[in-house]
Amino acid sequence: MRGVIVPLVTPFNEDYSLDFQALEEHIGYLEKVGVHGIFVNATTGEFTSLTKEERKLLAERGRELVNASFYLVGTASTNTFEVVELTKHAEDIGADYAVIAPPYYCPLNDEALFIHYSMIAERTDIPIILYNIPSCANPLSVSLIKKLALEYSNIAGVKETIDSISHVRDVIFEVKGERKDFKVFTGLDHHFLNTLILGGDGGIMACANFAPEIHLKLFKAFEDKKPEMFEYARKLAKLSQVYNLASSFGSAIKIAMQLRGFPVKPVLRPPYVIDGKETREKIKELLSLLELIP
Amino acid sequence: MRGVIVPLVTPFNEDYSLDFQALEEHIGYLEKVGVHGIFVNATTGEFTSLTKEERKLLAERGRELVNASFYLVGTASTNTFEVVELTKHAEDIGADYAVIAPPYYCPLNDEALFIHYSMIAERTDIPIILYNIPSCANPLSVSLIKKLALEYSNIAGVKETIDSISHVRDVIFEVKGERKDFKVFTGLDHHFLNTLILGGDGGIMACANFAPEIHLKLFKAFEDKKPEMFEYARKLAKLSQVYNLASSFGSAIKIAMQLRGFPVKPVLRPPYVIDGKETREKIKELLSLLELIP
Amino acid sequence: MRGVIVPLVTPFNEDYSLDFQALEEHIGYLEKVGVHGIFVNATTGEFTSLTKEERKLLAERGRELVNASFYLVGTASTNTFEVVELTKHAEDIGADYAVIAPPYYCPLNDEALFIHYSMIAERTDIPIILYNIPSCANPLSVSLIKKLALEYSNIAGVKETIDSISHVRDVIFEVKGERKDFKVFTGLDHHFLNTLILGGDGGIMACANFAPEIHLKLFKAFEDKKPEMFEYARKLAKLSQVYNLASSFGSAIKIAMQLRGFPVKPVLRPPYVIDGKETREKIKELLSLLELIP
Amino acid sequence: MRGVIVPLVTPFNEDYSLDFQALEEHIGYLEKVGVHGIFVNATTGEFTSLTKEERKLLAERGRELVNASFYLVGTASTNTFEVVELTKHAEDIGADYAVIAPPYYCPLNDEALFIHYSMIAERTDIPIILYNIPSCANPLSVSLIKKLALEYSNIAGVKETIDSISHVRDVIFEVKGERKDFKVFTGLDHHFLNTLILGGDGGIMACANFAPEIHLKLFKAFEDKKPEMFEYARKLAKLSQVYNLASSFGSAIKIAMQLRGFPVKPVLRPPYVIDGKETREKIKELLSLLELIP
Repeated sequence: MRGVIVPLVTPFNEDYSLDFQALEEHIGYLEKVGVHGIFVNATTGEFTSLTKEERKLLAERGRELVNASFYLVGTASTNTFEVVELTKHAEDIGADYAVIAPPYYCPLNDEALFIHYSMIAERTDIPIILYNIPSCANPLSVSLIKKLALEYSNIAGVKETIDSISHVRDVIFEVKGERKDFKVFTGLDHHFLNTLILGGDGGIMACANFAPEIHLKLFKAFEDKKPEMFEYARKLAKLSQVYNLASSFGSAIKIAMQLRGFPVKPVLRPPYVIDGKETREKIKELLSLLELIP
Repeated sequence: MRGVIVPLVTPFNEDYSLDFQALEEHIGYLEKVGVHGIFVNATTGEFTSLTKEERKLLAERGRELVNASFYLVGTASTNTFEVVELTKHAEDIGADYAVIAPPYYCPLNDEALFIHYSMIAERTDIPIILYNIPSCANPLSVSLIKKLALEYSNIAGVKETIDSISHVRDVIFEVKGERKDFKVFTGLDHHFLNTLILGGDGGIMACANFAPEIHLKLFKAFEDKKPEMFEYARKLAKLSQVYNLASSFGSAIKIAMQLRGFPVKPVLRPPYVIDGKETREKIKELLSLLELIP
Repeated sequence: MRGVIVPLVTPFNEDYSLDFQALEEHIGYLEKVGVHGIFVNATTGEFTSLTKEERKLLAERGRELVNASFYLVGTASTNTFEVVELTKHAEDIGADYAVIAPPYYCPLNDEALFIHYSMIAERTDIPIILYNIPSCANPLSVSLIKKLALEYSNIAGVKETIDSISHVRDVIFEVKGERKDFKVFTGLDHHFLNTLILGGDGGIMACANFAPEIHLKLFKAFEDKKPEMFEYARKLAKLSQVYNLASSFGSAIKIAMQLRGFPVKPVLRPPYVIDGKETREKIKELLSLLELIP
Repeated sequence: MRGVIVPLVTPFNEDYSLDFQALEEHIGYLEKVGVHGIFVNATTGEFTSLTKEERKLLAERGRELVNASFYLVGTASTNTFEVVELTKHAEDIGADYAVIAPPYYCPLNDEALFIHYSMIAERTDIPIILYNIPSCANPLSVSLIKKLALEYSNIAGVKETIDSISHVRDVIFEVKGERKDFKVFTGLDHHFLNTLILGGDGGIMACANFAPEIHLKLFKAFEDKKPEMFEYARKLAKLSQVYNLASSFGSAIKIAMQLRGFPVKPVLRPPYVIDGKETREKIKELLSLLELIP
């Protein structure tokens, strides 16, 4: 798995129920444009606002709909036994990868985090992508990622949602340096090209929900060593400023999706909130500037 | 409600199932020594490692067992609808208070946090204690607490698990200053006396699981204006160093409980880990020094 | 040395030159009310805005003026050799203590900080007060303070400008526990009583520039075990909210001094800025409430 | 000015005096290899360990020695008047740019920082490079940088020593977007290529003291749109791990310089400390791996 992976928004109806029709249309669209992976129950997918049953249902529906791309399922929870349960479920339904953020309430030290991931890795066979997102959950240090990568062959890679070239550099050099097949993805659109340059494998990036063409062109230009990659990188950097404009990932993405005519409604489950008119206008302006809307 | 409130550990059997017998014995003990409140599904109670069903079950069993003291139930979750469901349940079973930490995955701004608590306050009637614990969940600012306190009379108080006299001072002066019946509790044993001095109402303190006599004597001495309150305050400060010794609240408390002969087993659900022999020895030494064990 | 120590503002004329007349009047006043120590070249004294020559001059003038109280001189700098030079100067002019914050540009680890203080302690004989102020300079850990206290008898104590009971508790128990004569002062007005209760020696507190009577009454009530200490503690806590109102220590204190009729002008050297009318009004309101102005 | 700028180490003799001979040799070498700028009194040059007189002397000697490259002088201080004095001096001796980090003791808000830089910009004519280094000094926000850039034409650019693509992106798009000639340099070797890709002007990077050939080849390959730029970018990223190995910039750089046979001695003024044998061996290994030493 390399390239552009989309952490799917979870479509809701106005009454906050799951909108399976929009899900189907959205996955159909992404497969048609040719993204390399599709990831349900992501942070952008508001997994913390879904019940365990909904998470399983979404994982199952996604499995039916995703054909051409790799299929990833988020299985994080605050408690290890639930992560094992969800990861087994992802394995049973035939997902390609489970993506697992660390527990996200009180601080845990590296030893506890190692035990947490060990318990999961030893009880499941599906390839696991660690998910480092220190603004939301316990942080994963380079040395912990390395220790897990060298100990468990089914821990297959890491998603790095961290705005630090130092950290991404160290993960690539220190971990991939000793285990070549270990995959490193950025979780931030504006880190995509830099991560590829350093030797990473791609990105799992929320803006690819509504403008995957930019990510895909950038990736192709990089693979083909074409100089237009820089133009796309700047375009993507500009686009990623959308996160500055809204109060959450989900709000930014769902507003942008609506502006571009996607079937996903601008509905977030609380505590997340769709931002109001002012934010909407700013996002509109940004999308116009990038010629993503007329 | 004033005084010493105990955030209950959740007793587990060796197989990680709920140990209701230990729960009963422990609550019985705490009622006998005369604590002023008992709080189930607390942070120390590992609420993030319990299923929704277990949380309800625990809340119900607790309700049957707690007679003399105020009865508090923790109802936090990452998603607002689940908080409403759990808070309604607490109300239905006759709890005295629901204690609600903010959502604990991605950052939320004050506006989103206000909407979150508003939705809960408007859908339930049970008195709510806000629970500020910025090391684990989104932080509650003084201005947000004030806004909620002045808007919703069923938001009855706040638990402050924050090591900052400045913050506690501001909450007491700014919020209690405008709404006298709003209650302010510290969540840290070593802040107990200082919070009382500033005008707060007491503490919800984990060391009261295994040494409530110190907290109770301190509280009584303070209420009676007896100078020995300082001796107890120093003793409690010394005792609170137990948190320095272990990797989590739960580990510190359950090891100490076992050392003092409580029926609660030293079992934590993962990802929390009971610390090993070295930590145990240090906790033993501390308890000896304070004459809590022979 | 125990009790109330005043970190002196440095009085400036309108043209930013040193205002020695105001200095003399201010020290005279503080001695008359009976503070236990006077500290020049403090943070509140804007030492980082003074030339080395001015710092020496101020130290000398202060030495002539301070008679009844202990006399402390701040000798911190970003570079060790300058600290040694200033500390020797403080010693030569007969100061009682040198107060030394850590270097304050790039991060230093504990080993480098230990070497820094060792070099100073080995080259001077004046008693040294370490000065922990992590919001401004490199932080001093409990273990580093302990190591320095046990190694150098001329390192006599520590000033803790940190809003953490945990830290102050650990310093008192861990360091004073092994070296009884090691002094622990808070640097925050609202920590004064709590620090005394835990076994500390007093406070070096900026509000004592303009309202030392509150600190002195509080200290006396504590020493005499009188219950009115709590009333004074609440008054001081209220007063310490003055720091919330202004953009810097210096601005808060110099505005308050002017409002109370002190001879010190409301002039700060840039980059510090005296806040405008709105801040002034709020400080006025606070002082009125506490009956410090009519 | 574009390209590779070297923040010069300050060479010291064993007795800590300035080593002007090594300075001359080092500048001669850098000019011969063709770096685009040379910067004295930098962070790496331990400016906080130099007296004001030494800083002026170094600035003057550097001015005599630097011919082909742009010449930059660091003029930061904790106090505005001293910054003005040093900046005027840099102007008088004919430096091309003054590089000015914000004050570095207590926190200052954006208003105070704006006044600080305004006072400097209004009293001097030399082009000023703002210097954002939040790990050491008060941080410069994007909005503050923008406000200064739009208000003062002699504020010519910014050096960003911050490990955040988001921040660098925002500075380039928000500030350069409205003022094309405003220059943006990274201060981190491993951000060099990414900053150029986003539209920045180059880097002021400490590893260029001892391995400028990598930076220069990378810059040339980027300007010529040659794909080998990626190979050099990875090499530079690897090299930049040298900062992980040592306790300070200065220690890393001076040890590496000695290993590569430069005339600069491995001497730092305290409080900075040259790391010992273990660090030295690790740096040696890194340099060998990159074929910078045999």
